[in-house]
Amino acid sequence: MGRASSGTDLGAYLARRPPRVEAALDALVPREGVFPGIVHNAMRYSVFAGGKRLRPLLVIASAEAVGGAVEPVMPTACAVELIHTYSLIHDDLPSMDNSAIRRGRPTCHVVFGEAVAVLAGDALHALAFELLAQTPAPVSSVTVVRVILEIAQSIGTAGMVGGQVLDLLGERRPNLPTIPSWPREAGAAVHDIHVRKTAALIRACVRAGAMLSGASPEALEALSRYGQRTGLAFQIIDDVLDEVGEAARLGKEVQRDAIAAKLTYPAVHGVAESRAIAAALTGEAVQALDPLGERGRLLAELAQWLLHRDA
Amino acid sequence: MGRASSGTDLGAYLARRPPRVEAALDALVPREGVFPGIVHNAMRYSVFAGGKRLRPLLVIASAEAVGGAVEPVMPTACAVELIHTYSLIHDDLPSMDNSAIRRGRPTCHVVFGEAVAVLAGDALHALAFELLAQTPAPVSSVTVVRVILEIAQSIGTAGMVGGQVLDLLGERRPNLPTIPSWPREAGAAVHDIHVRKTAALIRACVRAGAMLSGASPEALEALSRYGQRTGLAFQIIDDVLDEVGEAARLGKEVQRDAIAAKLTYPAVHGVAESRAIAAALTGEAVQALDPLGERGRLLAELAQWLLHRDA
Repeated sequence: MGRASSGTDLGAYLARRPPRVEAALDALVPREGVFPGIVHNAMRYSVFAGGKRLRPLLVIASAEAVGGAVEPVMPTACAVELIHTYSLIHDDLPSMDNSAIRRGRPTCHVVFGEAVAVLAGDALHALAFELLAQTPAPVSSVTVVRVILEIAQSIGTAGMVGGQVLDLLGERRPNLPTIPSWPREAGAAVHDIHVRKTAALIRACVRAGAMLSGASPEALEALSRYGQRTGLAFQIIDDVLDEVGEAARLGKEVQRDAIAAKLTYPAVHGVAESRAIAAALTGEAVQALDPLGERGRLLAELAQWLLHRDA
Repeated sequence: MGRASSGTDLGAYLARRPPRVEAALDALVPREGVFPGIVHNAMRYSVFAGGKRLRPLLVIASAEAVGGAVEPVMPTACAVELIHTYSLIHDDLPSMDNSAIRRGRPTCHVVFGEAVAVLAGDALHALAFELLAQTPAPVSSVTVVRVILEIAQSIGTAGMVGGQVLDLLGERRPNLPTIPSWPREAGAAVHDIHVRKTAALIRACVRAGAMLSGASPEALEALSRYGQRTGLAFQIIDDVLDEVGEAARLGKEVQRDAIAAKLTYPAVHGVAESRAIAAALTGEAVQALDPLGERGRLLAELAQWLLHRDA
């Protein structure tokens, strides 16, 4: 994704943390040798497709920003990646976005068939909660339950799934009922889609890392604001890259949003204005970290890196 | 479903408990008026399709069998019904069992389209864990986490989803890879499918009700055995009814298993032998309740009722 040279704190961090996430995921997602092998094969195919591991990184970086350790938050870090992966598998289905390529490879349903893809997604969804419930000491069960609630809410109809529903309706497909009275104008509508579809889970990741690490109410509030803005900016840049990016670098088909007439930031505001909005949100995200002082620096760098990425 | 006349304890129980489950589900699943309405509409369409509420009843009856109250287990009772409903919505999809009718009505994807059906299932799955995490006092958080783990494991690849994968592969569809070396013979294979597909979650329901009510290790062990055998017998009778039942009474298309050449108990053992196996399992289930004494009587009646049902 570029820009995070190894000379910076972030560069060193990105060299160190993602391999630990990979190793944990490798240990936690059953192998093909475990019966029934085909579904585990499909799950691993999609989990180990070269994702950025952004959500696990945010769980871990948030924990560390409030003085927490990596080990106790690792099951949660893996769980949110499994949730993200399940959502991609289902979003790519023929009845949804109908995407044949993701991260430069055929999508799950292309390789394993639609039925196994639906079930692999469902299995990752359940496995995520299995991992969350296996959060180790010293985290208290009270906190584990709170984190499970937080994450479950962020991926339901008030969050990720709700955003995907609105995204589909924004396409106004002929075979889908339209919303009788779209409650807001296009700008507000696309904001609402993105907040639900992407920002809700990213905010929950940041909050979960902090909650599991015993963050103070002030730190948690600061990190919530950071997570929400970073998540929204992340999705806006995603839309911009879909609009202007090269297929080879992104590893997926581009301009699919435009072709599907999706309600995106570039569609509503144009590319330049969308970039400006994402930059403003990133500024707000960084500012929100003020109460954390020096400890917030890595998260600030991470937000800037996400803003300037080219893939 | 017949046979449980209102003169019996079970009859009185079935007149009293299901309405409480209905009221709780009605309060907990968002209405169409909550934005985005279409997905809530689809969720409610499938949740309120006239199901037997067997899984919630087992959670509650198990809690009461160890002296527990109804109120603290109600979120769990609703959660397992949402999980069951999500699994039906996904199983009915064109890429899976391709069922157009369930409980006498068009299936979710027929009414709302495939995309909304996939998402309604995903939303119910997430909402289930949201409810589990909202289990009220006096249940301790330690117990809530254990129950979440138990239920998540029972619906993953070692349980429900794994069973559905094997069920699909048992069909040996041309477009699905076959298992290179099916590890057991047909009799063992169909047993394995049913244990995962149905018995795992039913066992988890019974265990959850008991765990949330502070059951002793002995009572929990007894109820685990009861749940596993009752769950397996339930699925065998389901297969038998699919083979011999009338479409009108079952509210769904019959002989679909035979047409799809599914690996079922009647297909492997014949109808009479399948009924005998289910009866033997029910006998074991009832016997397993011995340590509970008089308190186990209702669960015993429930198992007998499930064995002799005709729909």
